[in-house]
Amino acid sequence: MGDKKILTIGLVCLDIINVVDKYPEEDTDTRCLSQRWQRGGNASNTCTVLSLLGAPCAFMGSLAPGPVADFILNDFQMYKIDISLLLEHAECSFPASVVISSVMTGSRTILHMNRNLPDVSVEDFSKVDLSQYKWIHWEGRNADEQVKMIERVREYNSKQEEKNRITISVEIEKTREPLYQLFPLGDLVCVSKDVAQHFGFTSAAAALKGFYGRLRKGATLICAWAEKGADAMGADGVIIHSDAFPPEKLVDTLGAGDTFNASVIYSLSNGGSLQDALTFGCQIAGKKCGVHGYDGILH
Amino acid sequence: MGDKKILTIGLVCLDIINVVDKYPEEDTDTRCLSQRWQRGGNASNTCTVLSLLGAPCAFMGSLAPGPVADFILNDFQMYKIDISLLLEHAECSFPASVVISSVMTGSRTILHMNRNLPDVSVEDFSKVDLSQYKWIHWEGRNADEQVKMIERVREYNSKQEEKNRITISVEIEKTREPLYQLFPLGDLVCVSKDVAQHFGFTSAAAALKGFYGRLRKGATLICAWAEKGADAMGADGVIIHSDAFPPEKLVDTLGAGDTFNASVIYSLSNGGSLQDALTFGCQIAGKKCGVHGYDGILH
Repeated sequence: MGDKKILTIGLVCLDIINVVDKYPEEDTDTRCLSQRWQRGGNASNTCTVLSLLGAPCAFMGSLAPGPVADFILNDFQMYKIDISLLLEHAECSFPASVVISSVMTGSRTILHMNRNLPDVSVEDFSKVDLSQYKWIHWEGRNADEQVKMIERVREYNSKQEEKNRITISVEIEKTREPLYQLFPLGDLVCVSKDVAQHFGFTSAAAALKGFYGRLRKGATLICAWAEKGADAMGADGVIIHSDAFPPEKLVDTLGAGDTFNASVIYSLSNGGSLQDALTFGCQIAGKKCGVHGYDGILH
Repeated sequence: MGDKKILTIGLVCLDIINVVDKYPEEDTDTRCLSQRWQRGGNASNTCTVLSLLGAPCAFMGSLAPGPVADFILNDFQMYKIDISLLLEHAECSFPASVVISSVMTGSRTILHMNRNLPDVSVEDFSKVDLSQYKWIHWEGRNADEQVKMIERVREYNSKQEEKNRITISVEIEKTREPLYQLFPLGDLVCVSKDVAQHFGFTSAAAALKGFYGRLRKGATLICAWAEKGADAMGADGVIIHSDAFPPEKLVDTLGAGDTFNASVIYSLSNGGSLQDALTFGCQIAGKKCGVHGYDGILH
C-alpha cells in the first residue's frame, strides 16, 4: 500500500490573480501591483498540497487544449502530480477565472466563467484502475454521476482485503441541492462554512450535530470555520476542535480550504488520529494564508 | 512600391475581456456572460485593421516566451501580419490586461500590468531593412528612442527618390510629457482626445489649432473626438471634419481609436485625400464599435 496514490477528482482551471492597491472603480484604468497565473480549482489545489506534503497523488478532471492547457499541464508536472487520467476535450474552451485581490481590504473579487467542459463522467471513471489508489477524494460537482462513481469504489472495496480498500472522501462546498446526496457516501465528508450557514448553522459544532445524521455509519464529518478553526466528529459522536493558526500577516487566502482538506486527508491517510489531522489541517491552512500560492506552506 | 509594407511599432499585449451584466461589487463572485482572449496593444491593433483592410503590413514589438506568446503569435499569423521583426525577451514575463466590460453601462474597466518587457530600441530598429516599407507608424511610448528611430528614417528618405520615401506617422495617445517631442516628427500625427483635453482643449478643432504650431512644415494633424467624429488639418491650415458613424448598437469600443488610425493611414497610403481618409477612418471606427473584436469591420 506504500506506493498507492491519492486521487482527487474535480475541477482544474486557470486563476489569473491581479493584486491591486484598492478595488478599482467602474470605468477606470488601474495598474496592478502584480499579476500571476495560478492553476486553480478545488480538487486541483488539494492535489498540489498533497504533493507538497509528500503524498504520491494523481488528479482526474477535464481540460481543453490551447495555451492555457499548456500552462496547466506544465504546472501539474512541476508539482509531480500524475495526470494520466486527465480528459482532453478538443472542442471545448478553457477560460480563466479572474481574481482581483485588494491589498487595502484583503477582498477577493472573482469573475468566473461558464466552462463548457463536461465534468468527469461515470463512464470516464469506469476506465480507472482502482488498484493504484488508496484514497479517492471527490470535489462535489456533478453529484448524480459522482454517486455512481463512489458506488463503483464501494463495490470494489467489498471484494478487497481491508488493507487494500480505498478510502472515500467528498467535499461539499457549494450550496447546491444535488450535492447534499454526497453526505451519506464518504468515509470522510468535508462540509463548508458556506453550506453550514446556508442550513442556518452558526458554528462548526452546530453544523456537525445537524449534519451528522446524514452520514454513513462510522464516517467522519469535518467543518472548517475560517478564523474560528475547525471541528470534526467521528464514529464516536464526540466533537473535537482545533483553533486556527493565523499567519502573522494575512497574504492570500485563495485555496486555504483546499489546503485544509489536503492536510486532513494526508494526515488521516498516514494513520494520524482525527485530532492530529484536524490540528495539522488548521496549521497548514494557516501557513498557506501567510504566503502567495502554495510553495511556502511547509516552511 | 506596390509590394512595400506598412510597419507599425509599439505594444502588443494580451487582453482578457470579461463581459458582465453589471460591474461587480467588491468581494463578490460574478459569473461572466462571456470571456475572450484578444491580442491587444495600440500598434498591434492598428496592424490588425491594416491587414483586414488589405494592406501588406508588419509589426515590430517585444514579446516574452510562454503560453501567452504562443496565443499572440498564432493570432498575428491568422491576420497575415509579418512578425519577422518581433523581439523575443526570454527573461521577461508577458502578463495580460484584464478588461471588465459591463453590458449595463457599456463601461470598460481595465487592469493593466507593468510589463518588464523593454520597448523596441533604436539599436533593434537599426537592423530593419527600410527598403521594405512605404510607411512606418510609431505608437508613442519610449519617445527618446523613437526620436532617434525617426531620425534614421528621415536620413534614409533624404537619399531616396520621392517614390521610395517612407511616410512617418506617430500616435500621441497618452498624457506623458516625453511623448510631446514626437509632435514635430511625423508626416502624420494622430493626437488623442485625452491629450487634447489634458492641454485644456474642448474640441478637436481647438486642439488642431493649438497643436499645429508644433508640427513640422507640411505635416498633417488628426484628432478624433469619439462620438463627435474627427477633425484634421493639413499643410494648407484648413480644418476639415467628419462626423462619427455610430453603429446601431454600441457593442465594443475597445480598439476603436486604433481602428481609426489604421483606416486613415490605409486611405492616405493609397493616395486618398485627407477628407477621404478622415471620413473613412470615422466609418470604419464606427463599424468596429458595432462588433466584438475586428473581424466584422468590413461588413
